Amino acid sequence: MKIKDCKFSGIKAGIKKDKFDLGLIYFTEPSTCVAAFTKNLLKSNSIIVSERHLKKTGHIRCIIANSGCANTACGNDGIDITEQICKVLAEKLNLLPEEILVASTGVIGEPLPKEKILSNLDHLISSLGTGKGKIFNFARAIMTTDTKPKVVYKSLKMKSQKGNILCIAKGAGMIAPDLCLNKQHATMLVFLLTDFLLCREQMEQLMQHIIVPTFNSFSIDGDTSPNDTIFFVTTNISNNVIVKDKEFKELVEHFKIVCEEIVWKLLSDGEGVTKVIKIIIKNSESKNAEKIAKTIANSLLVKTAFHGADPNWGRILSCCGRSNANIDINKINIWIGKHQVVKNGTSNFVKDSLVRKEMKKKFFEIIIDAGNTYCKNLPYSFFTTDLSKEYVEINSQYKT
Amino acid sequence: MKIKDCKFSGIKAGIKKDKFDLGLIYFTEPSTCVAAFTKNLLKSNSIIVSERHLKKTGHIRCIIANSGCANTACGNDGIDITEQICKVLAEKLNLLPEEILVASTGVIGEPLPKEKILSNLDHLISSLGTGKGKIFNFARAIMTTDTKPKVVYKSLKMKSQKGNILCIAKGAGMIAPDLCLNKQHATMLVFLLTDFLLCREQMEQLMQHIIVPTFNSFSIDGDTSPNDTIFFVTTNISNNVIVKDKEFKELVEHFKIVCEEIVWKLLSDGEGVTKVIKIIIKNSESKNAEKIAKTIANSLLVKTAFHGADPNWGRILSCCGRSNANIDINKINIWIGKHQVVKNGTSNFVKDSLVRKEMKKKFFEIIIDAGNTYCKNLPYSFFTTDLSKEYVEINSQYKT
Repeated sequence: MKIKDCKFSGIKAGIKKDKFDLGLIYFTEPSTCVAAFTKNLLKSNSIIVSERHLKKTGHIRCIIANSGCANTACGNDGIDITEQICKVLAEKLNLLPEEILVASTGVIGEPLPKEKILSNLDHLISSLGTGKGKIFNFARAIMTTDTKPKVVYKSLKMKSQKGNILCIAKGAGMIAPDLCLNKQHATMLVFLLTDFLLCREQMEQLMQHIIVPTFNSFSIDGDTSPNDTIFFVTTNISNNVIVKDKEFKELVEHFKIVCEEIVWKLLSDGEGVTKVIKIIIKNSESKNAEKIAKTIANSLLVKTAFHGADPNWGRILSCCGRSNANIDINKINIWIGKHQVVKNGTSNFVKDSLVRKEMKKKFFEIIIDAGNTYCKNLPYSFFTTDLSKEYVEINSQYKT
Repeated sequence: MKIKDCKFSGIKAGIKKDKFDLGLIYFTEPSTCVAAFTKNLLKSNSIIVSERHLKKTGHIRCIIANSGCANTACGNDGIDITEQICKVLAEKLNLLPEEILVASTGVIGEPLPKEKILSNLDHLISSLGTGKGKIFNFARAIMTTDTKPKVVYKSLKMKSQKGNILCIAKGAGMIAPDLCLNKQHATMLVFLLTDFLLCREQMEQLMQHIIVPTFNSFSIDGDTSPNDTIFFVTTNISNNVIVKDKEFKELVEHFKIVCEEIVWKLLSDGEGVTKVIKIIIKNSESKNAEKIAKTIANSLLVKTAFHGADPNWGRILSCCGRSNANIDINKINIWIGKHQVVKNGTSNFVKDSLVRKEMKKKFFEIIIDAGNTYCKNLPYSFFTTDLSKEYVEINSQYKT
């Protein structure tokens, strides 16, 4: 498990009580980064500083990330504190401050504990290394309510070259990513690294058509965070062989699989989650499909019914009706798994016991045919989870 | 407790197991009705039939209502069955079928149990009567997960005449009313009756400016139902003294109080609800204010924090940022009770313990100043509730 020119560390800096909470990714060579942040108008200072740095320089050398504090809405000197940390870290690593990116996750409104971070930078740097252990330490350092570190790794041999893709992510609550290329911010943090040499144009294509859409296609609780960040980094700039067009197409598929695998890990480790549900909307223009899918995905009544395997499909049909999508409700057909529960907008009189059996599975699909057969779009997919008492438990005492 | 020319009954018809489930309001004289239904595209057959009947006739004589079945999406003969019930009831009462309105609440997708209703019509009619007991029997017959019947009554003496206002309502879950005058449908059912003689224009004014806005200003779970109905009925047509303009203004205030009282009953008896929160948005255009208020009101993270009295105000600020409202996040000020937690978009460093104390109350206010001081609108108010494990419990097993 490795990415060329790339070292990792994760340590306990005392931001949280006896837990990994500070991580570093160090690139031994200048590397290219394309970033995406969510559309929440509230911005983490970490994102404000990262955006500034990305504007100043064409390459990056280092990412520092912490959990235990969102570095958001924590006083007017929050940006200064973040810049100071970058400056000290830059001196220690012999870099420019703008070669450093920052990511944070945790409670909103509490100041970044500057002294704890500064006094642990030497330890953070001396802990840098390669290999699975170091990578997982970094993954642990960015966890909040996540119960497991989330890492997906692929080593690939293409015709003309070989290389690696590594994705590290966190996020269990406040998860409804709504990211925008080069715009701001969630508390989903994604670090997607590769040592295949891609040019910036290829990176931006990947980000726009594969990475951002994949991470925007799921919701745990509908709450888009002010800290969501994807950093997509290509190391190995010294390699002069940029991936060729034909092989790029193949590579795109691998990136897609890596992103989907990590999204799956995020979903199944979501706060209080016991089930993952894929919602597929067919025969619908994409805007309508998105409205229908997100209304279902974020409905408390649907999510609690999923949790109890309650075959209350009327709630799904009702969501179609209140979604503001431009649809003919009498043309709606709905399947839960292989069972068609709604035919032309009304009951298909399927036995509840059959539907309940399907809904007891840890993963199942809901298919909605919106009946617009003139529409030639591919089906639209969106993932959601159930809503359990444990979610309520976790989030009613988060700060307490 | 009475409304002139108006009788009530509520009985156990066997739609539910040994519970009141069928109710009737009978007007001994032709009465005027103005109705509002929600905007969900999915329509209960009860609403489709009521809309039809309201179009056919200028007055009504009777409302039949049931719980235990939403009469929605339950096969293509659902409208026929509903019309048949109206026809038989009309014959028994010597009315025209179109003088009858219908309202239903319960599970979506199950056919209305025609035989049970038809075989109980005689019992329903013979039970008709006046007085508190009969009114409460009707209120019980429309309950689903409500734990209490909801009735508000006012007897008023105006200068030139006296009269009464009675409001009976139900609704604990699938509650985010989005009603539209003379449009369709929720599972909030409201029966607002008065024997003050109002002309249709006065009734429509009241409906548009007082009744609908009041019932649209709260949410329990964000799920707008396909059955939501308000029937606003004026009896006493034989009285020739229409309320005068000056007294109408006074009456408007009384109607407002009645509606607010019943909304309060709906909120505090909401599924699993332990707290009611009023969200007030100041210095904001009304469209933006509505976006901010509804995003906060329906956020799982905010509602769970309310539940646990967790002073996690960052979630409220984050909702402002993701609400799609056109705001300057750096001008946002937020109070929880009397404590200003956010000043100019960032922490005001109030002690958590103070905020927690406020949030432990059964009712408290959140005030958001959106900073648009050029805007001269009155503050916008919206009510919401906390989200408890009990809500999850109730709704994960609703149909099971």
